[in-house]
Amino acid sequence: MKRFIHLHELAREEVLDLLALTDRLETADPQALLRELPGKILALLFFNPSLRTMTSFQAGIARLGGGSFVVSPGQGSWNLETRLGAVMDGTAAEHVREAIPVLAGYGHALGIRSFAGGTDLAADLADTAFEEMAAVCPVPLINLESAIDHPCQALADWRTMEEIAIPSSGNFVLSWAWHPKPLPLAVPAAAVHMAALRGMEVVVLRPEGFGLPETVMERARQAAALSGGSVRETAEREEAMAGAHVIYAKSWTAPAAYGLPEAEAELRAGLRSWCVDESWFAPARPECRFMHCLPVRRNVVVADEVLDGPRSIVVREAHNRMWTQMAVLHRMLHGGAR
Amino acid sequence: MKRFIHLHELAREEVLDLLALTDRLETADPQALLRELPGKILALLFFNPSLRTMTSFQAGIARLGGGSFVVSPGQGSWNLETRLGAVMDGTAAEHVREAIPVLAGYGHALGIRSFAGGTDLAADLADTAFEEMAAVCPVPLINLESAIDHPCQALADWRTMEEIAIPSSGNFVLSWAWHPKPLPLAVPAAAVHMAALRGMEVVVLRPEGFGLPETVMERARQAAALSGGSVRETAEREEAMAGAHVIYAKSWTAPAAYGLPEAEAELRAGLRSWCVDESWFAPARPECRFMHCLPVRRNVVVADEVLDGPRSIVVREAHNRMWTQMAVLHRMLHGGAR
Amino acid sequence: MKRFIHLHELAREEVLDLLALTDRLETADPQALLRELPGKILALLFFNPSLRTMTSFQAGIARLGGGSFVVSPGQGSWNLETRLGAVMDGTAAEHVREAIPVLAGYGHALGIRSFAGGTDLAADLADTAFEEMAAVCPVPLINLESAIDHPCQALADWRTMEEIAIPSSGNFVLSWAWHPKPLPLAVPAAAVHMAALRGMEVVVLRPEGFGLPETVMERARQAAALSGGSVRETAEREEAMAGAHVIYAKSWTAPAAYGLPEAEAELRAGLRSWCVDESWFAPARPECRFMHCLPVRRNVVVADEVLDGPRSIVVREAHNRMWTQMAVLHRMLHGGAR
Repeated sequence: MKRFIHLHELAREEVLDLLALTDRLETADPQALLRELPGKILALLFFNPSLRTMTSFQAGIARLGGGSFVVSPGQGSWNLETRLGAVMDGTAAEHVREAIPVLAGYGHALGIRSFAGGTDLAADLADTAFEEMAAVCPVPLINLESAIDHPCQALADWRTMEEIAIPSSGNFVLSWAWHPKPLPLAVPAAAVHMAALRGMEVVVLRPEGFGLPETVMERARQAAALSGGSVRETAEREEAMAGAHVIYAKSWTAPAAYGLPEAEAELRAGLRSWCVDESWFAPARPECRFMHCLPVRRNVVVADEVLDGPRSIVVREAHNRMWTQMAVLHRMLHGGAR
Repeated sequence: MKRFIHLHELAREEVLDLLALTDRLETADPQALLRELPGKILALLFFNPSLRTMTSFQAGIARLGGGSFVVSPGQGSWNLETRLGAVMDGTAAEHVREAIPVLAGYGHALGIRSFAGGTDLAADLADTAFEEMAAVCPVPLINLESAIDHPCQALADWRTMEEIAIPSSGNFVLSWAWHPKPLPLAVPAAAVHMAALRGMEVVVLRPEGFGLPETVMERARQAAALSGGSVRETAEREEAMAGAHVIYAKSWTAPAAYGLPEAEAELRAGLRSWCVDESWFAPARPECRFMHCLPVRRNVVVADEVLDGPRSIVVREAHNRMWTQMAVLHRMLHGGAR
Repeated sequence: MKRFIHLHELAREEVLDLLALTDRLETADPQALLRELPGKILALLFFNPSLRTMTSFQAGIARLGGGSFVVSPGQGSWNLETRLGAVMDGTAAEHVREAIPVLAGYGHALGIRSFAGGTDLAADLADTAFEEMAAVCPVPLINLESAIDHPCQALADWRTMEEIAIPSSGNFVLSWAWHPKPLPLAVPAAAVHMAALRGMEVVVLRPEGFGLPETVMERARQAAALSGGSVRETAEREEAMAGAHVIYAKSWTAPAAYGLPEAEAELRAGLRSWCVDESWFAPARPECRFMHCLPVRRNVVVADEVLDGPRSIVVREAHNRMWTQMAVLHRMLHGGAR
């Protein structure tokens, strides 16, 4: 595997294969695990903050016998320019066209986190900035969250649902939630695609004006069609939650007000009741679970009572980040070149 | 061992056992050492700056064949909320109730540094914030300095005195020193307890108004009673230093002015002469040593002549941080679960 | 090897020996490589930003089976005082006279990056600050770029020219380039010395007022005399580039205006045409290469057309940082003490 950049580049069978490998790795003898990727080096480049992604990759590659290093431009390292053709007489001392092949060459694989620019929706939907970096990366590349995708999170979420036996054809609600800031579309796009590709009955529950971009929805519908699932949208909570196996909460910016923070704030103004609490679960199945990619704002996106109760599987999702990413690394680097 | 949080949770014999293990590890063949904790991952969470603690743990676990990762909230990672029940619409994107189990699950043990809040003396003496984090940590937990304790430093200090054969019943002076800022009580509390538990004749030398809290003193007196030592306080330098084997210098805030920086500054105002120089040693034993946990401000807390002379054992104390912590990690992780 | 601090401390034969070792390490079986320095710990102290140096050392020691840790004063760690005799009541909490022996003792070798102070040319030329730190370092010490030298870069550059068969007696042009800020002399000093020691015909091409200090030039001339090369200066581009095998671009501050940013800015004011583009290569050999230590500002120091074309070997230079540094580490640590 040379790229793990977009979930929609993988067939359902490829995901299932990665999950089977995950199972094998998690149950392997820890000593034997150290002999899977001895001396393989993972380079990690973070343009944005990280807690889980950084540490789960560091721990994961170490458990496989390899090593890693982390670069955060502007924090102990140079600011990096990304614009093609720029006359670099500002604050950026180095261009990604040098930095990426250099860092890639110190490792055997490279991971990059680069959030949405947040001003040009079309460019963010096309993941233009990420693909420009991918084009100059000479080693296997992992998307640690880009403008429009977070495939590592999606893979971990899929596995989490397998572990607790949420049926492949179950009811999956992706719900918008209120948040004090406009947030990127990467996680909701990845989650809806993941659930669709898994074959689930997917409902995107969101206020009017917060519908996901048609590109995202159409791609998810195509995945659903192949997997036997479905994808639809609604603004009606009761109806969306009826019979739900799982609710996945996440805030995202209103696409109609993309890059317009004041217009976006106005759209969000009356929506603080979009905070998931126990009352949301009345129409759902009794065992309905709560998912979130983390970090999550308590009592803003979701109430303490849900996070601290038995519905919450957010910590298990986070732990599955490590185990599933180990499978991705293994597919990329096992038996590979120096 | 599941917790290494407070020195007062350990019996004298447990400390001696850790020191014996330290000796064995430091003299072991380095290659053999790599087979002690192969693949074990140490998660390190720093809410406050660190030089020795971070690097000695990173080096120590690596020498034992394991690995580590470091998270510093707000520096490349999210700000973390610690208050229970908070409505998180401010700067903190994540709560420790998620972050701690998540990070713990990527590793086999977790270390946390979280200095005193510095406003509520009772809460800091009870280490309330640290214990709330401990309550949600599913793996062995190490205190990397909390509001009121620094057991890693205390263990290293104890070993340093063993190495240079300072008698268990020797005279130990913990002296307050002037410092431009009010500093936490963790190190003086740990040092006085350590010396008392070792069985030493402990004198706390401090200006009026800077006596350590009664909770700390009483606990130290109880440890001394069991170990055959003693603990007392004085403001008289000559008398305190008479026959001293060692002086351990450290600044700390005046408990009476806890959380009141202006009142505290007034109390400190005339005390710049509390800077340890060679003249302090006149009444002491000729071979009297100088100890400090570091970082230390030269010519403020202690004069160059002392730090650069043969009395100073501060670098050896720092090196013993690594070796003693390796023993703690070994007790926690050797032969343990995945 | 106990010091890798200045290239001029090495004889030509010692450099060739390191390059031969580099070849052996790069072509070794990766598994075998892990048995070269198992469990050896490299301590890395960065007073200034780094991309390549930090990551190439982390990756390099990991490929040899060892580990590393990074300290950046002021970024998650204390600010460090360097002045002897300072009364430390300002922002620095710790002195390098403690920090360096402490960090060194956690590792088996130490690397330090400490850029020029930039105010006292004589002190920077003598590398006074770096040598004061070296004096208190009890383990092998590597210069990760000091006030006046960057031997790791020089070694990588030498190897890069070997790899593409640029003759030892070839024509090497070190050219000044415009830059928005006054930059240190370390890289140009290291580059000119390296090329001279290799035996090349070295021309330093720079505007009037930007001649390298006589100390640097004289040392390079001595190296050239021993190796059969030569060193001269000129301000005439056409003449300098005639028959060139390689041009090495780098900006540096005007020594005459050292520590005087306004005077320096005036000297630089009319010199934006000192940006290497394809037209510069007309008088050179057709295969003339472009070198730079990176980070490089595109379309300021060098045009996109050069960096993106076949002349550029900057990424290979950067990759050789890792392989040559692995040779340095190997000479320092192989078979050594614990």
